[in-house]
Amino acid sequence: MIIQKEITLKPRERGFHLITDEITSQLNGFDKSCSGLAHIFIKHTSASLTINENADPTVRIDMETYFNKLIPESATYFMHTLEGSDDMTSHIKNSILGSSISVPITNGKLNIGTWQGIYLCEHRNHGGARKIVVTAVLNDL
Amino acid sequence: MIIQKEITLKPRERGFHLITDEITSQLNGFDKSCSGLAHIFIKHTSASLTINENADPTVRIDMETYFNKLIPESATYFMHTLEGSDDMTSHIKNSILGSSISVPITNGKLNIGTWQGIYLCEHRNHGGARKIVVTAVLNDL
Amino acid sequence: MIIQKEITLKPRERGFHLITDEITSQLNGFDKSCSGLAHIFIKHTSASLTINENADPTVRIDMETYFNKLIPESATYFMHTLEGSDDMTSHIKNSILGSSISVPITNGKLNIGTWQGIYLCEHRNHGGARKIVVTAVLNDL
Repeated sequence: MIIQKEITLKPRERGFHLITDEITSQLNGFDKSCSGLAHIFIKHTSASLTINENADPTVRIDMETYFNKLIPESATYFMHTLEGSDDMTSHIKNSILGSSISVPITNGKLNIGTWQGIYLCEHRNHGGARKIVVTAVLNDL
Repeated sequence: MIIQKEITLKPRERGFHLITDEITSQLNGFDKSCSGLAHIFIKHTSASLTINENADPTVRIDMETYFNKLIPESATYFMHTLEGSDDMTSHIKNSILGSSISVPITNGKLNIGTWQGIYLCEHRNHGGARKIVVTAVLNDL
Repeated sequence: MIIQKEITLKPRERGFHLITDEITSQLNGFDKSCSGLAHIFIKHTSASLTINENADPTVRIDMETYFNKLIPESATYFMHTLEGSDDMTSHIKNSILGSSISVPITNGKLNIGTWQGIYLCEHRNHGGARKIVVTAVLNDL
C-alpha cells in the first residue's frame, strides 16, 4: 500500500524550523497494524530537510550559525550569485543537508527517537512557501 | 510492484554533472496510474549523487570549487592517500553528499521541482565508469 | 512484503565503525528471488549512519580527524553545550552525515559495491548503546 500527499508549508524566515507536527499530521489515521517507511521530499534547491534534536531551540540557532560560517556569503569565488549572496550558498547547504528524509513507520506511527524531530532548513532570506511530497510505503506486518 | 535496473554511466571528468535524463530514461514507461518512490544508488565510495539546480552550469562549477576548498587535497593530516591526493578527499565528499537519492514518483513520473536535477558528483581525477542501481517501489493509487 | 526489525548496537567509542555484518545479519534468509530496498535508520541525534570504504582502517581514522576539524569543539559560538563540548558538534555531524542510509536488495542480498561498507559514526565521547531500525521493502521480481 502506498499513500502520497503533496503539501505546502507556509513561508518561514531563514533558519532551522521544527515541522514534525505538520508532517505527522499527514501520516495519521493509518491502521495500527501498518508498518513500513515514510519518505518526505522537498521540491526546492535552496531549502533542505533534516532530522535533529527536537527540544532545545538553541540547537536550531546553533545550526544556522554554524552553516553560515561553513558556507560564507562573503566568499568571492562564487559565480552563481544573480539572486544575491544567499543564492549559491543556499544550493550548497541543500546538497550537504539533503532534499529528503526517510523514517520507519511502526504500528501506524513514525518510529523516531525520543529526541528526534523533523527540521525544515530555510536557507534563503525570503524563501516563500515550500512544497513537500510525503510518500508512505506500508504493509500489514 | 518493484522495478530494479543496474546501469553503467560513462566515465566523466572530475566535477558535478547533470544526469537527470539518463536516470529518467530508466524510469519511463510506467502506467500513469503508478505512484511511489524511486531510489537511485551509486556503488562507489569516491563519487556521489545529489539533487540540485538544473539550469545554470555555474552552479555545478561553484559546487566543485566549494567542495575542493572544504576538503583540501593539500591537507597533511590524511593517512589514506595511497592512490593520490584525491583519494581520501573523495571518500569524505562521498559521505557528506551521499551514496543515494530518493524521489517521489507521481502519476508515472519523477515528481521533482521545476529547478531540481540529479547530479553525479565525480570526486576522482580519473573515476572511470560508475555503476548505478535504480529501484522503483510503485503502486496504483 | 515489508520486514522490519529494531536492534540495539553495543556501545562503541567515539569514531567511525564498520557495522556491515551486524546489519546484513538482520537481512539474511530472504528468498533469492526477492529484490527491493533496505532502509537503516538510527534513532539518535548524536550518531550517524553513512556508507564508505570497507577495507582500510585509516579511512575511518581520517574521517574522525576530518570531521573534528570541520566542526571544532573549541568554537566559542555554540550555545547548546550543556552536556559538554561534544554536544552541539555531535548534532551538526549528525545532520551532515545523516540519520539513515538506504541500499538496494537484489536476489535476496544487499547490492552494494565491492568497497562499500556501512559505518556507525559515533560522535559522542560516551554515546552508549544505539538503537537502529532496519526496514526492507521487497518483492519477487
